[in-house]
Amino acid sequence: MASNLRIGIAGLGTVGAGVVKILQSHGADIARRAGQDIVITAVHARDAKKDRGVDLSQYGWEKDIAALSTRANVDVVVELIGGEDGDAKALVENSLKNKKHVVTANKALLAKHGLALAKLAEDNGVSLNFEASVAGGIPIIKALREGFAGNKIEGIYGILNGTCNYILTEMRETGRDFGDVLKEAQEKGYAEADPTFDVDGIDAAHKLTILSALAFGVKPDFANIDITGIRKITANDIEFAKELGCRIKLLGIARDIGGRIAQSLEPCLVPIDAPMGTVEGVFNAVFVEGDFVDRAMLEGRGAGQGPTASAVVADLIDLARGYYLPAFGLPVSQLKDAQWAGAKDIVSGQYINLTVTDQPGVIADVSAILRNFGISIESMIQRGRDPGQPVSVVITTHECSREAIRAASAKIAALKSVAAPPTVLRIERF
Amino acid sequence: MASNLRIGIAGLGTVGAGVVKILQSHGADIARRAGQDIVITAVHARDAKKDRGVDLSQYGWEKDIAALSTRANVDVVVELIGGEDGDAKALVENSLKNKKHVVTANKALLAKHGLALAKLAEDNGVSLNFEASVAGGIPIIKALREGFAGNKIEGIYGILNGTCNYILTEMRETGRDFGDVLKEAQEKGYAEADPTFDVDGIDAAHKLTILSALAFGVKPDFANIDITGIRKITANDIEFAKELGCRIKLLGIARDIGGRIAQSLEPCLVPIDAPMGTVEGVFNAVFVEGDFVDRAMLEGRGAGQGPTASAVVADLIDLARGYYLPAFGLPVSQLKDAQWAGAKDIVSGQYINLTVTDQPGVIADVSAILRNFGISIESMIQRGRDPGQPVSVVITTHECSREAIRAASAKIAALKSVAAPPTVLRIERF
Repeated sequence: MASNLRIGIAGLGTVGAGVVKILQSHGADIARRAGQDIVITAVHARDAKKDRGVDLSQYGWEKDIAALSTRANVDVVVELIGGEDGDAKALVENSLKNKKHVVTANKALLAKHGLALAKLAEDNGVSLNFEASVAGGIPIIKALREGFAGNKIEGIYGILNGTCNYILTEMRETGRDFGDVLKEAQEKGYAEADPTFDVDGIDAAHKLTILSALAFGVKPDFANIDITGIRKITANDIEFAKELGCRIKLLGIARDIGGRIAQSLEPCLVPIDAPMGTVEGVFNAVFVEGDFVDRAMLEGRGAGQGPTASAVVADLIDLARGYYLPAFGLPVSQLKDAQWAGAKDIVSGQYINLTVTDQPGVIADVSAILRNFGISIESMIQRGRDPGQPVSVVITTHECSREAIRAASAKIAALKSVAAPPTVLRIERF
Repeated sequence: MASNLRIGIAGLGTVGAGVVKILQSHGADIARRAGQDIVITAVHARDAKKDRGVDLSQYGWEKDIAALSTRANVDVVVELIGGEDGDAKALVENSLKNKKHVVTANKALLAKHGLALAKLAEDNGVSLNFEASVAGGIPIIKALREGFAGNKIEGIYGILNGTCNYILTEMRETGRDFGDVLKEAQEKGYAEADPTFDVDGIDAAHKLTILSALAFGVKPDFANIDITGIRKITANDIEFAKELGCRIKLLGIARDIGGRIAQSLEPCLVPIDAPMGTVEGVFNAVFVEGDFVDRAMLEGRGAGQGPTASAVVADLIDLARGYYLPAFGLPVSQLKDAQWAGAKDIVSGQYINLTVTDQPGVIADVSAILRNFGISIESMIQRGRDPGQPVSVVITTHECSREAIRAASAKIAALKSVAAPPTVLRIERF
């Protein structure tokens, strides 16, 4: 073959080692598909001696990460260090400035600095690819940028964090509480020692930022996502959800509501027999609604060595085939400043879990508040009876705005007979 | 914008009119994404006067279909006529010979002549794109050719015909028989007056031919698909499937079994709670198994104006972006002649529906035959009891080869107490 695409890999953790494995095991097939060989010419990691389960002896070991971005024998820098600042950011910036293509799986970096980096890539005539940053091996970035490019996208939503989906699945299957299941997930290596990024929804919100920019042609804007994690979900909520024929899923939802975009990341109730309800464990799923394609779904493993490395290599093959697109599907100058939807625009059914003193009149008070905000009750369940003691009451409502339910919840929380601020969750019938 | 991609559309049925609608309504957005305008310069259909719900007055009407392939102001010919020979084939061939790119939704043409057409495109330095030929708006061709290109694909399977899936869903929900539901589907326009292509599995097999070539890098070969349609599925089978916790789905399955490829198209039992079991009505779903990505699924509307036109336009946008790939992901010279798996290699659980005379000894005879072929019984259900009369007995087996079950079925059919050849269906636990 006439030429090679020469790559330098920074970061040899799970994903980096996976990329090496794919290129080593499928090199010949990939070259046939890509039209040229993809060869690793340099690698960098903090610890040169660690056994990573792959033979790295044939590659140049680059001690100095900064030097990777200027190496003459590197056409593409693969950034798999992670983190929204520090080494990762410097490496990506310097690589682009030095006219190296960049392939990265770094959603935090893209969510925070995606716009500036896209501009830098454009200015230097190189490509910034990040299929692996969202939903592991699922080719959702490509689907949005290319496969659905004939559509006006109306909504994109999904289960974007495998750790949370695993915890919620486990809570439902075992009846245990959040803290308990989290601890076990940490012991098993499914959750990080510091689980904040996952369980507080930050990681999924990073991914939603990227999807939303691609779907709506707007500047990526992490700051405008309304984020609620899963820490407050109790075994009691999971039980009530079951009774309502639903499951609780941490959903990223971005919608175009009459030209204004709503971005949220929060636990929602979804019907058990809806496509979203059946996505379990560590799987991710992304739904796309377009005006011509109607609704399509992509599902697969959202993390892990093989799937994530598969996405990195797909990006490399695109580059080897000579296919470059603007990072967010449009030249940076054409990405719009989004108009953001307000709490008034975001409408859904609601689940309200109240801990109330079991005494006459409580429900009348709560109902009156809901009525005063124009919110109509769909169902009410009380579990057990224990006069004078706190009991759980769950109310579901017909569609109402987020503004209305928030105002009503505040009033309800202030009632004497209500023991704690109610848990309010969105109901989405996907 | 500096340049235009000029297209000529042949065939202005549902899909053709849809393409016009997308380009008319989203022209400006598409130009921003594609980097140039995509303009319709010529259209052709048999009847120039028919109202198609779109304004065609601004386009050159080309009366002579043959002239479309030589028009100077056409860069891309969009073939939406259909049919594996005749006008469609001539148009695609001539267009490629005249160095026009071709975009088509014609699965029959590709399944039968895909290899020759891919060669013709290659020899003339133009592109042959066909995202719309499989699974409507789902970008499965792109996913195989690009998104999963870092993997060795081990299997691809799915629900590829919306008409059959609709009929099977309807049969289950209403308890009615095949003929009855088909008739209604025809009246509603969900099935053709001549339903052969759909219900006998031909249409889905065309699609599987294309997917299999892309997945395994082999020459498309429709002749090597073992095809069984859904005509013989009865309400009785649907009932038994329910009792077994399964649904019956018409599945296209292509697998790499130790370097040999098995392609089949047949109704199968799948568990109701497996991802494949929940794909209902006119929806299509395609599952891909790759050695690194593990399993991914793409689901969406498999037909209809909007989704199919969305896929055609995605192909046009790729072309406008200057992105051409070999039709089947590899240069034609590198597509392999597949080694085909035999009936011995294809292994699965089996469902056997027997109509037997209700008398002692029948089951002993059947069991003995199965044992003689090394087939082990998993479960047996008899419905009702009516001594001396025919009753249905369903046996499910553990995994055995297609060769074994076929030989055993022939022996079972020859038993005096068995009233008719048994219905044998594959059980797949996707």
